[in-house]
Parts: sequence; C-alpha cells; structure tokens
Amino acid sequence: MKIAALAGGVGGAKLADGLYRTLPAGDLTVIVNTGDDFTHLGLKICPDLDTVCYTLAGKANPSTGWGRSGETYTALSEISSLEGPDWFRLGDRDLGTHLVRTQRMREGSSLSQITRAFCASWGIHATILPMSDDIIATIVHTRNHGSLNFQEYFVKLHCQPEVVGFQFDGIGMAKPAPGVIEAIESADAIVLCPSNPWVSIAPILTVKGVREAIRPKFVLSVSPLIGGQALKGPAAKMFSELGWQPSAQAVAEQYRDFLNVFLLDPADRADCDAIRQWGIISYVTDVIMKDIPDRIRLANEILDLINQRLGGM
Amino acid sequence: MKIAALAGGVGGAKLADGLYRTLPAGDLTVIVNTGDDFTHLGLKICPDLDTVCYTLAGKANPSTGWGRSGETYTALSEISSLEGPDWFRLGDRDLGTHLVRTQRMREGSSLSQITRAFCASWGIHATILPMSDDIIATIVHTRNHGSLNFQEYFVKLHCQPEVVGFQFDGIGMAKPAPGVIEAIESADAIVLCPSNPWVSIAPILTVKGVREAIRPKFVLSVSPLIGGQALKGPAAKMFSELGWQPSAQAVAEQYRDFLNVFLLDPADRADCDAIRQWGIISYVTDVIMKDIPDRIRLANEILDLINQRLGGM
Repeated sequence: MKIAALAGGVGGAKLADGLYRTLPAGDLTVIVNTGDDFTHLGLKICPDLDTVCYTLAGKANPSTGWGRSGETYTALSEISSLEGPDWFRLGDRDLGTHLVRTQRMREGSSLSQITRAFCASWGIHATILPMSDDIIATIVHTRNHGSLNFQEYFVKLHCQPEVVGFQFDGIGMAKPAPGVIEAIESADAIVLCPSNPWVSIAPILTVKGVREAIRPKFVLSVSPLIGGQALKGPAAKMFSELGWQPSAQAVAEQYRDFLNVFLLDPADRADCDAIRQWGIISYVTDVIMKDIPDRIRLANEILDLINQRLGGM
Repeated sequence: MKIAALAGGVGGAKLADGLYRTLPAGDLTVIVNTGDDFTHLGLKICPDLDTVCYTLAGKANPSTGWGRSGETYTALSEISSLEGPDWFRLGDRDLGTHLVRTQRMREGSSLSQITRAFCASWGIHATILPMSDDIIATIVHTRNHGSLNFQEYFVKLHCQPEVVGFQFDGIGMAKPAPGVIEAIESADAIVLCPSNPWVSIAPILTVKGVREAIRPKFVLSVSPLIGGQALKGPAAKMFSELGWQPSAQAVAEQYRDFLNVFLLDPADRADCDAIRQWGIISYVTDVIMKDIPDRIRLANEILDLINQRLGGM
C-alpha cells in the first residue's frame, strides 16, 4: 500500500516514523516542507528535512525531537567565543550534514538528489523528498516586528511576535521536486502528518500542482492540536493571532476542501459534529505519540482506516 | 625593541611564540604566509595564520604543532559517513574559527581585520598580520602530477610528487596587508623564523614592497634545516628536487642579498665558512625547539644578538 505523507518537523516526523516502521520497505514517500530552510554561516540548513531524515534513521535526539542524538556543541562554543552568530544551535554532527549538503549544492546537485544520497548513507528505505528543489522562504509578517525570516521568528525570537500573516517567498516560480507529484498521484492515500498547518503543511500544499494532485485522493490528517493546544511549537498561538479559535475543528477546516478522514484526540470529541458536516469522517483516538510504540500504533490505525476504504472500493 | 617576524606554520610559530613570550607586550609583529590558504567545503582556511594564532594563544595541539589542543572530530566523522571530502582533517574547534572567518569575509571584512578581532578574543597581545588581504595561492608544479594547489600537494598527496617549481598565483596584483610594510620599516630587526624557504618565507618576500622594505633592515634568520633535514615538512625534499644540496648553507643562500645573521645548528658548523663569505654572520646554537623553554632560550639569544648590534650602533 503506497502512502505519501506530508510533514514538517518534529510532530510530523514522529508519524512519518510510525508509518516507516509499519509499511513494507519502499511504500512510504515523505514530502517535507522546505519553507523553513535558510542559510546560516554560509550553510544551507533544512530543519524539517533533517528532522525527518534523522528521525527515520534513528539518529534524532529523543528528548528534543530535532537535532542529533549524542550531539556535541564544540564548534558552536568556538563560534560564541569569537562573537559569531550562535543563536541557532548548530551541533557538531549536524554541522557535518550542512557542510556536505552545501558543498554538493555548490557543485550543482539538487536538494532532492542530495537528500536521496544522504538517505542511502543513513540506511533509510523510504523516499524522503523536499517539496521543491527551488528556494522557498517562509516569511512571517508580524504586528510589531515587521517581516521576519522563519528561523528568526522561530528560534531567535522564540515565536514571541504576534503573527498577522505568512508569505512563501519564491513559491510562485517553484516547481515541485522530481517525484513529488508522481508520489501523490500513485499513492493509495495521502497522510497529512500532525504538523503546523500554517507553516509546515500550507507551504507544501501551495507548491504548484500539489493541491490539485491531492484533491482527488483519499486524504487523512492527524490533528496537531489537542484541547486547543499544540504539543510543541506555535500552531495554537498562530490560530489565535490570525483570528481563529485554536481547535482540532479549526485544523480540519483548513483542509476541508479535500480532506476525507480527520483523526483527533478524545479531548476534542465535541469537534466531531462540525467536522462531519463538511463531509469529513472524524476518527477519535489517542494522537499523542510519547514513544515509538505510540507512533506504530497510530500508524497502524491510519493504515487500517485506509485498508477499510480500499477494501470497500 | 620592535621586532617583525616572518613565519609560516609549525616551525615558524614556535619561534614566534618564543619571541612573544620574551618581548614586552606590543613589541612583536608576526607577518604570516597566506599562500597556503584555500577554500574547502566553502570555508576559508588559513593554515599558517591559524597555527601562529593558536600557538601564541596557547591553544595549539602540542603533539602536532597545528590544530587545536583538546580537539574533537565529530563533524568530520559525519562528513566521512556522507562521503564528503575528508582528506583535510577539520576539527570541531577549528571549524568554529573557519565558519566565523568565512562569514565575516562574506560580510566584507578583510582577513587582517578578522585576524585582529580573533587575536583580541584569544587574548593575544602581539600583532599578527596576514602577508596580504588579497588571495594568493601557492601552486606546486610537479614532474608527474601537474600543477597542484598547495594543500592538495601537502595534505592530500603527502608531499610525494616531485617538485619542479612554484608559482604564487595572484601575488603580482596583491597588496601587502595594512601594517605589513609599516611593521617592517619601524622594526629594530627582522626575524625570518625557521619556516620553509620555498613555500612559507618566499611568498611573503614576494609580496609587493616586502623585500624592498626588508633589505635595509637588520635581518636574522634561523635555519629550518639541521644536518640537511627538515624537522617537519618537505623543505629538504624541495631543495633536492630543485637541484640544491639541502643544507643550512643552502637556506642562507636564499636570503644572502639581505641577511645579516644566520643561526644554525652545531651539526651544520661546517657551513659557516661559506656563509661568512657572503658577509653574513653565522651564529651556532641549538635551533631545535622541543619545548617552550627552548623557544624562550632561542628567542633570548636572538634578542641578545639584536641588542649587541643596537648597542654597537
């Protein structure tokens, strides 16, 4: 059963990992947000792509969800002592990734080619694709801090500024990375992982052809909000600042024009009625993934839902 | 007493450190070869400049003479595992230096400005100057391996190829770094540290105006060859391949048009006669610096020689 999953960083990577551990080798394609990518100290850094790869490779830091397990920060401490920019916490292992990726890009390789090679080196048997090989930059428009690059907003300013809108610079000209549209079209189902709808899933959906390719497919989504709160990151805060009551229902509404099944937490059971009225099937289950067995359980529930639908076709 | 020292990497840095530990703060300027500089993984790397700075800062690896003490190689092992270029052994601490330097250059700072800031961060009270802020690349012409960038010859090919000549690319257009000519002109004496005459001292002397500024000064040099051998590096092999018998005398001959005093090892006492015929004073002493007391002893002998000359003026 072929699955194409759309994912951002930590939360999305956990479900992608559950699917990866559950599906036969080669059946999973993860299409990853690259709107958060940026250049720092001359290095091309792809936070979401790296988080997904590190997670599927079993190399992610289990306590943060991002970065590498067993990471050290020797280079960073030298950067600090030379008064270089140290607000983005680059680990030594992570630096190796960025140095090689940046070098390969300089030599003319595309991000998707490099990601394929890295996945091979790391022994990952799923296909992990950046949403695009072209540069797309998520800009966060804020009330009192002007327009910020995403990492500035996210890491440097700790998501404090009040958001008034988003812009995905370069997305109009960007092509989906090779394989993105094909993976969606050939998938039995599309899974939107529990990632931030505004800055992780929206950029992927906005890449030319992606939304159109997804629309006719069987699409499931897992709520990243539980009881109006995000487990991690600024999703709930963004909903509020943009004038939405943060809730599972509000998440489902973002996807209502193409979503078939929405998985939400028992805490959000009351949202099911509204969601059902949009023709979306609500499925109440524990969507919190505290550990790897949770990831596998949730993935199995999703695959069962897809199997029921495929069996019923 | 103001001293301007010319230095390459490890051997030169040892004597520079001896002078640094012996002279009053602010009296030493070290002018460092930058012909070995290169760009690797997008990073501007200045091996001789870093060796001199790390040595004077007390941060050099005491067993190699280059690189950092307490160095780790975590990023490098990731670079290797991703099949990136790992022939140049970049340590994690060293990476911090290169990342910040490269960033500052991208922002428009010159190498000499950056070096001054680094020396301040590292608490170095001498002036360390790159020979030039312009890019100069030492090219090694070889019999069977064509023309090689210096680090390729030195690190990647372990100095194996037979040398037929050198070229300092860009040196015709390069200006001495700010302060280089002034430091030479205002110095009471010039010290050529025991560095490779062909690829460490020659590039400095070839920078526009340097040889002319040195010619009228009181100049001392310490032989990097002892009994026809270099303590480290390919100097003796280069002399042979270029048709010279490698010896202290052969070193002195490179500098005979401006050298006043040549310090050489007791093993090379027989070379004194020839050297004296060129009007150069030979001074026989133990020029091997095994430890820091050796560096200080040799520096004191040099400063005594300069004092005798100044007193005699």
